[in-house]
This record gives sequence, C-alpha cells and structure tokens, in this order.
Amino acid sequence: MPTPPTPAALTARLKPLRQRVRDAGHDAVLVINPVDTRYLTGFVGDDSWTLVPVKGTKVYVLSDARFDEQIAREAPHVNAVMRKRSLVDELKMLRDRLKLSRVAVQKGSLTVDRFDAIKKGLGARAVAAWDDGLITQRAVKDAGEVKLITKAGKIQQAAFRELRDFIEPGQTESEVAAFLEYRMRCLGADGVSFPSIVAADANAALPHAIPGKTKIKKNGLVLIDWGAKFKGYCSDMTRVIFTGKGPSKEMRKVYQVVLDAQLAGIDACRPGVRLREVDAAARKVIVDAGYGDRFGHGLGHGIGLDIHEDPRLSHLADAQAVLEPGQVVTVEPGVYLPGVGGVRIEDDVLITGRGHRVLTDLPKAIESATI
Amino acid sequence: MPTPPTPAALTARLKPLRQRVRDAGHDAVLVINPVDTRYLTGFVGDDSWTLVPVKGTKVYVLSDARFDEQIAREAPHVNAVMRKRSLVDELKMLRDRLKLSRVAVQKGSLTVDRFDAIKKGLGARAVAAWDDGLITQRAVKDAGEVKLITKAGKIQQAAFRELRDFIEPGQTESEVAAFLEYRMRCLGADGVSFPSIVAADANAALPHAIPGKTKIKKNGLVLIDWGAKFKGYCSDMTRVIFTGKGPSKEMRKVYQVVLDAQLAGIDACRPGVRLREVDAAARKVIVDAGYGDRFGHGLGHGIGLDIHEDPRLSHLADAQAVLEPGQVVTVEPGVYLPGVGGVRIEDDVLITGRGHRVLTDLPKAIESATI
Repeated sequence: MPTPPTPAALTARLKPLRQRVRDAGHDAVLVINPVDTRYLTGFVGDDSWTLVPVKGTKVYVLSDARFDEQIAREAPHVNAVMRKRSLVDELKMLRDRLKLSRVAVQKGSLTVDRFDAIKKGLGARAVAAWDDGLITQRAVKDAGEVKLITKAGKIQQAAFRELRDFIEPGQTESEVAAFLEYRMRCLGADGVSFPSIVAADANAALPHAIPGKTKIKKNGLVLIDWGAKFKGYCSDMTRVIFTGKGPSKEMRKVYQVVLDAQLAGIDACRPGVRLREVDAAARKVIVDAGYGDRFGHGLGHGIGLDIHEDPRLSHLADAQAVLEPGQVVTVEPGVYLPGVGGVRIEDDVLITGRGHRVLTDLPKAIESATI
Repeated sequence: MPTPPTPAALTARLKPLRQRVRDAGHDAVLVINPVDTRYLTGFVGDDSWTLVPVKGTKVYVLSDARFDEQIAREAPHVNAVMRKRSLVDELKMLRDRLKLSRVAVQKGSLTVDRFDAIKKGLGARAVAAWDDGLITQRAVKDAGEVKLITKAGKIQQAAFRELRDFIEPGQTESEVAAFLEYRMRCLGADGVSFPSIVAADANAALPHAIPGKTKIKKNGLVLIDWGAKFKGYCSDMTRVIFTGKGPSKEMRKVYQVVLDAQLAGIDACRPGVRLREVDAAARKVIVDAGYGDRFGHGLGHGIGLDIHEDPRLSHLADAQAVLEPGQVVTVEPGVYLPGVGGVRIEDDVLITGRGHRVLTDLPKAIESATI
C-alpha cells in the first residue's frame, strides 16, 4: 500500500478546493501555508508556494533548488518551478503564462506585508485575500489520515509504557521528556508533535509547563502531555503519574473529578452535537465539584497535520458549530491548583457516522496512575 | 546570575522599539509574534498579544488563564491581562483605558484576516499595519543572547561527540537522529532547534532530507544537520561522516571543495562587509571547482530565538546590506550530487567589533570525518 496521501486522496482534496475557488469567481488559489501544501500535494518543504488553477488538473509548486529532488520524490505529479528570481516574480510569470486574471491568496496565512508585495507584483486588482476554507476542510479527515493519526497514537502510547518502567524519583522533568521523545523516535515517529510537557508537583499547575531541572519526588505527581508525529500527523495525550504512596486525599479527589469530566466529554462526542455542548458536558462535572475556576482552558481541539486544528471544543466556540464525522479531537479537561499541582487527562477521539471512537487507550483509572 | 533576559536587557530591548513607535507617530505597538513577546518580556507562551505603549514603562500581555501562573513566573514585571472575551475585545478595552489613539500592529506577523478583525474592533483609523523593525533589531544579539547561543552550540557538539562513538553501519537515519536528539536533551537542551537532518548516501543530495528507514552503509556517507535549543536560543551545525573505507575519490574532492569554501566564507565575515560578498567568497571556491550548479542555496542565515533570522547570506540579499557586530550567522556551503550524495559543512559565527569569532569548533578536516 502506498503511503498516504495517495494520488486518489490528493485528487479528492483538490476537488472541493477548486470548486470553492470557482464559486468565488477566482481563476486560481495561491497556497502559501506549507502545511496546506503538504496536504494538497504531499510535498514537505517550506519557502514554497503552491498555485492551483481552477481549470485543468495541474498543480504548480514554486520552490527553489534546495527542494528540486525532494519534490520529485514526494510530489512527482506536480509541476515544479525552481525559481531563479523572487517568488513574486515567478508567480507573475506563471500567472501570465497561464493567463489567470484573478488569483486568490490564503487570507488566514497571508501576512499584510507579503500581501502588499504580491499586489505590487501582480497588480492590486489581479489578486484577492480569500478565505480558502481549508481549515474547515482539513478538520474532516479521510481514511488515510485517520490511519496516520492512529499510528502516531500507538507510537506515543508504546513509548509511555516504556516510560512507566523507566521513570523514578530523582529524575528531572527534562530527563523524563528526553527519554519519552527518544523512545517515540525509535518506535518510528518523525518526532514530537509539540514540545513535551513533563511537570512535577507544583509545576503541573501550569497548563503549558516547560520541562526543567525540577526532580520527581518520592511521593509526587508528574503530569505528562506529549505527542508523536507520524508521517506528518499528530497525536496528543496527557496522563498523570503518582509516585510512592500515591495521591494525597485532595489530589485523589481532583483526579477523579477530572477523569469523570473527561469521560463525560468523550461521551458527548457525536456528529451534530454543538461544540459548546461537548465542552459544557465535561465542564459541568468540574463546576459541580467546586473546581470550576480551576479549569481555565477549553476542553479540546482538532488534531491532524497541525497539533491545533479545528474544531475547537470550547465555551467560546461559534454557538451553532457542531461536530462532524471524520473530525478528530482531543478531550482534555484539567484542574490546576496553584502551588500544589494539577491534573489533566487527554485522549484523541474520532467522530464516526453514529458516535465516536476513542483512538487512544492507555489506562487512566486512578489505580493505574500510581507507580 | 539571573537567567537572561535580565530586567536590564529587557529595558534595553524595549527602548529602541518605543523610539521607533514614537518616530512613526503611533501611541503603542501590538506585538503578536510570540517569539517577539519572549524577546521583549521573557514570557514563553502563545495565543497572547503584547501591547507596548510609547508613554511610561509598562508592558501589557493579553493572555488567558492557561498562562496566568506562567506569566507571573517568567515575566513578573509585565501587566498581565487574563482575557475573559476575545483578544480583540480585550485589546479594545485596554486601548480605551490607556487612551491610545493609534495602535501599530506588526506587519510581518499580522495576517490579513486578523488585521480585518482588529480594524473592525478598534476602528480602521485607529490601527496601522507597521514594520516594527524587530527583525533587524533582533539580528544583533546582546551579550546574554550570545552566551545562550554559545551554550546551545556546546550542547549540540557534546551530543555529536557521543554520536561518533554510537554510530555504526546498519543503523537507520531515524535511529541516529533519535540518539542525537536524546543526548542533546539529556545534556540540557530545551529540545532541538529544528528537526534534525540525518541523510545517508544519496539522501544527502537533498538539502532538507527527512530521516527515514535508510540504513547507514559499511562504506557510506552520512550528512548530519542538527541543532540544540537552549533557553529558547538556537544553534545549528552540519557535519558529514564517512564510514568504513572513507570517501570515494569524488566525494573526497567534493568534501575538500566544500570545506575550502566554508573557510573562505568564514574568513570573509567581518563588520561592514556586504552580505552578498560573504556568499560570493564561498561560492567562488565551489564555482571554480566546477560545482557551481550543485550549490543551489544561500551561504547562511542568522540564528537566535528563531532558527532562521536575519541577516541572510545570499546572492539575493539586498545589495547594500552589510554584516554588523553582534550578528550571529551560519556559514554552510554545500555540494549536492543527485543519486550519489552530498556534503555540507556548517558552523556558527559571531560578528565581532573587528572581525568574527567562530562559536562552534568540532573538527572538520577530512581525516576527522572518517570513522
């Protein structure tokens, strides 16, 4: 089986994009976000732009000599243009050659100064900053993408199982993070999907703690939020480990509240449910337990080629937005007690035609959290 | 000694920025690039904006509850605003409270759709997309920054020395990358400064190869381009290793050409020299040896909080742009032979008051490349 994206998958991704470009009255779209270029062509590089004309089936990648051979390997079907002048000048030449009168440029990735440069090169009326809809399109994964996310999850879980044997009091947060990332690499990951969080005791009260020299205590708590990337696709999980005598009475309570909240959040995941409702289902458990003001972030987010994608499970989400089949989201409530510690539990959930499937399955009952 | 940035360093960084804002006739600048926020405040987080008013000494970070405790730790001197509504709404309230009539927003980081949202919230005439000059300012490092880059370099070099004992034929590129990254972490790195390149034989002809399952041969070549990040600062090096009998006659020649080119490039580094001239000094060696069309990228780039910063040593650089004291650049010529292999040699170079100082010192004579 060829590695995704297969030619058929790429064709299926380009089709709705071309349709949107056509519907908006443009002749082509210029893709400047490298992750979108990967999604649409398979080419994994930066400093390159992808031009997708509405007419025909051709796709053009404007790149440079560094990526010449790489494009030939990763995206043999595209028309590669190895630039000899600025990207804007090459774009202008290509535009003239293809006789495109109006090129749309990705509004969400286009910076104001780059837009100015493109307008200057092509003429202000020949370009338009445009919402390409790829964020929404990419939120729904095809079968190949779900496989890759699942595989990333398997890698990160296998590494965590090894970590449970490795970890012991006296090690620093950094050492633990280093081991985990090393094992993910050895198990086949491209690398991490984001910088790992390994936070001991009071550091776990920082949702985005950076691993440092703090040591794991004999009777301590370690929050680990980590993820693998596999062929570009991200997985993302959080588990908490208690060492020695296990959790304090307070932390035992907090852990159970967060776990109950997470299960309630997962349970709420199904097509058609409002994003806000999923957040609310988990949040209610935490609020009812009296920790509402200790859960200061949204419930979860989409994952894919980026670690943070749509949809966002949050009380700030668009009131009408709902989950759709094919979306993959994290469900990760947390309770943080400044100066004491924190608990967050996170799994990755695929929305299916009728409900959901949890893609990650490391044990999370409190007994399994104590080593 | 406190970890940089010290309060004095932060004050010194804010001063020229405030001056530029004032000179441009704005009341404040909104910093939306998280790396710039780190540079100006010490706070390491995302989804946050920093507002620097011209008047007074206060700096405001608009963030959310996830980063509440982290900001208090990392940037105790800033005024943190934990938002309860959208970033734009919080910005509007702060703008009203501080009576700012014109807020400049970082043009190079501002996307067109975000700019639209800010204009909608604050009024189109109350905001301006503006070139803040931080790219140029950040290119010149202060003493604290040079220390951190130097330390990152020491870490990556120590890990490479361990790698030389570890590496052997039969290992995959991924395994080698995993080991190298693991050791950098254990030696104190925050993580990698970019995804490591470990490219065996023909893969080394791709300047941006991604480590995969290709195995190191008994009589082979491995190109390794890797870097450590230390307290946010990046180092970046490339070395080539030959296994077994050592390089073929052709590769021996290529190696020597690239090394001579690199030394010529380093030699050209001094304040006041044109960026193009530095590139040309190295390129001439490669062109004269008949490999001009096999060196398809620029000679090097600045490093700092980002792995790619100004200045760019390239034949495409602004014809008048020159090197300045305090800049730190990579010097990394390469020759790539499709289907055969490639050689790139890279070190990090600080521009001093009178010339330069090479910050990295792993051996690079061809004898030392053979293991």
